[in-house]
Amino acid sequence: MINWIERMLKELNLVESMDQPNGFTRLSYSEGEDRSIEVFKKEAESLGLQVSEDSAGNVIARWEGKRKDAPIVATGSHLDTVSQGGGYDGVAGIISSLGGVKQLMEEGFEPDCPIEVLNFRSEESSRFGVSTIGSKAMSGKLDLSIGKVEDAEGITIKEAAESRGYVWESFIEADKKEDIKSFVELHIEQGMNIEENEKDFGVVRSVACPVRLKVTIEGKASHTGTTPMNRRQDALVAVAPLVSFVSQKAGSIAGDEGEQLVATVSTIDLVPNSMNVIPGKVELGVDIRSVDDSLKHEIKKQIEDKCREIEDQHKVAISTEVLVDNDSIDLDEGVQSRLMEAGEASGLEGLMMNSGAGHDVMNMQAKCPSGLIFIPCKDGLSHHPGEFASLEDIQKGMHVLTNFLRNEASE
Amino acid sequence: MINWIERMLKELNLVESMDQPNGFTRLSYSEGEDRSIEVFKKEAESLGLQVSEDSAGNVIARWEGKRKDAPIVATGSHLDTVSQGGGYDGVAGIISSLGGVKQLMEEGFEPDCPIEVLNFRSEESSRFGVSTIGSKAMSGKLDLSIGKVEDAEGITIKEAAESRGYVWESFIEADKKEDIKSFVELHIEQGMNIEENEKDFGVVRSVACPVRLKVTIEGKASHTGTTPMNRRQDALVAVAPLVSFVSQKAGSIAGDEGEQLVATVSTIDLVPNSMNVIPGKVELGVDIRSVDDSLKHEIKKQIEDKCREIEDQHKVAISTEVLVDNDSIDLDEGVQSRLMEAGEASGLEGLMMNSGAGHDVMNMQAKCPSGLIFIPCKDGLSHHPGEFASLEDIQKGMHVLTNFLRNEASE
Repeated sequence: MINWIERMLKELNLVESMDQPNGFTRLSYSEGEDRSIEVFKKEAESLGLQVSEDSAGNVIARWEGKRKDAPIVATGSHLDTVSQGGGYDGVAGIISSLGGVKQLMEEGFEPDCPIEVLNFRSEESSRFGVSTIGSKAMSGKLDLSIGKVEDAEGITIKEAAESRGYVWESFIEADKKEDIKSFVELHIEQGMNIEENEKDFGVVRSVACPVRLKVTIEGKASHTGTTPMNRRQDALVAVAPLVSFVSQKAGSIAGDEGEQLVATVSTIDLVPNSMNVIPGKVELGVDIRSVDDSLKHEIKKQIEDKCREIEDQHKVAISTEVLVDNDSIDLDEGVQSRLMEAGEASGLEGLMMNSGAGHDVMNMQAKCPSGLIFIPCKDGLSHHPGEFASLEDIQKGMHVLTNFLRNEASE
Repeated sequence: MINWIERMLKELNLVESMDQPNGFTRLSYSEGEDRSIEVFKKEAESLGLQVSEDSAGNVIARWEGKRKDAPIVATGSHLDTVSQGGGYDGVAGIISSLGGVKQLMEEGFEPDCPIEVLNFRSEESSRFGVSTIGSKAMSGKLDLSIGKVEDAEGITIKEAAESRGYVWESFIEADKKEDIKSFVELHIEQGMNIEENEKDFGVVRSVACPVRLKVTIEGKASHTGTTPMNRRQDALVAVAPLVSFVSQKAGSIAGDEGEQLVATVSTIDLVPNSMNVIPGKVELGVDIRSVDDSLKHEIKKQIEDKCREIEDQHKVAISTEVLVDNDSIDLDEGVQSRLMEAGEASGLEGLMMNSGAGHDVMNMQAKCPSGLIFIPCKDGLSHHPGEFASLEDIQKGMHVLTNFLRNEASE
């Protein structure tokens, strides 16, 4: 099985070797995502699964059960990546889901209910700033108005989706009508908790959804050579202390473990960003996460207070806009216990933990009882060419998922 | 004459009204610069000047003198702008030079030597980070190797120039061979010294040329949601104190007048600049200017020391690269005195001062005795849509220049 995992890893990542210094780039609704999805479909068909696509581009690979109308046992993840990201985020989940089905087939298992492996289209937010579009559609949570959101080149989500052959208005028809008994996703941890606690896998209790702010600082652009230091309204100089503030304040709220809350100034856009012009305007993107929603709102307020202080000290105007404010998601407790049991049955030790990152499973939880398995990844590194999970750790995670699927789909 | 100034201002800026909220954008080697140059050529021809273009795209509008071989009296400026810049930077100089000739013609003046109005192509650095390309070529200071420098879209200077019909390798042939008696440029001050000293115009002693640094901070990109605060190598958090440091240190060196030295972090590029990824790499552009070269090197060293301190405090690597290190230029003392006299002869009061910004005149000083007249501009604002010089102030400056040209070109 480990050779199959290795082959799938390369094939789904469209490479001959996983050693890629510039990482993997398969943005939402790109040709790269399409090609990876084709690999998935081909492998699913070769396993004898019935492959179909819903109106939002999600692929459903179905293993028919003895009872065709019974609630479905579902599992899956995604195949798109961030720009220059890693080869395991999403892919490890697709491999484990497909591998779990393959294993059960090889055992001669006959599922009582249908088992479906789902590939959710366009999970990552790096192209449009909007994440999990496919699973939003499948779980009936999609708001079609996001179709007008643009990428850096001015292409909208609607245009990008339609360039791949879909019809944006039909995305809402992807809302899955059949009963689903449970949905489980496997994903790399993107952190170091499992490793530090010397466990084999993690089972997620809650998913920390972000509060995201756009902070706009308006100073005054003028000539770098002719504007005396004491007459400037430099928007970048004004905002520099805010970058330090967000990091320090989050660090103190986070506590010694550094995990209660995370907050990041992750984007910055300067106008005009020209060597001989004092920055007249700066836009910052701030990403705040915690499974404790009250902590997110506490730091949000402190950031806003700091902006007022900066406005008073520098001659600038600052506005803050809330781009995203999603409450954290508690996953199903029954699924959590059954996942821990499935792991223990394989002699593996699991860690109950939270997820700092959003995943498709948080949408599916609105549809059906859902769970999330984490597997370790090297140094917790993710969204980076150096992202790595060992074949052994992927296989261990797959064992947990396989046991879970067997239990769920048994009479 | 004031109506002519107003008409030329609009025509050279390619607008019906000077009230343009988004300013003026005629980048180096753009179609906009071409169109503005065509307006200039047409007006020069209508005045009866002989219009020619050198191999670097500089336009020479010549008024023949009684002695055709006598050293030339030259004046001029440029017609390109920064992105969303003002309508007076460069244009005020072209109008004054052409208006000076027009005035002398209307007086029936017959120049003893040739008078040339020069338009230098591509003075601004905002497209390529390289300034005064045309005057570098005309003064024999052009290094053809800069042809490979790219703009933000990856177009090189050579490609941009050749797209306008020039041959890059021929740019060196623009090195002007005839003797030039003097060259004078008129420009908006881009500062507030003239106004604060209640004078009518300025005469520049020295031009402060920049030291420009590229500072590259390498941290580690990772997921904003899953990387605990105490395990981050956030390049933006590391560099934020450097932005404050440059501003504070320059302010203290600059003194109470804020003018001895200016230093600006004017550009910032984040990699990946993506909402859910911790900034792994940041590049800063730092622009440092003073007519006192030792002060520029003092703050450069302090910035480098601060980088070492930041490297120790944060887990990042910082490298600094010197992009530009040009000594300041002292303009010709004889021309300075004659410009002051020319102003006083018109009943105008002049201020001897320095220039914080570079201009084409600094290249021409290497070729011939050169001088720079400043006229006031509102609030010192420049490289900004709000840049403004009154028609009256342009006309006063033109009087100084006209008197100077008359004196220079008399027997």
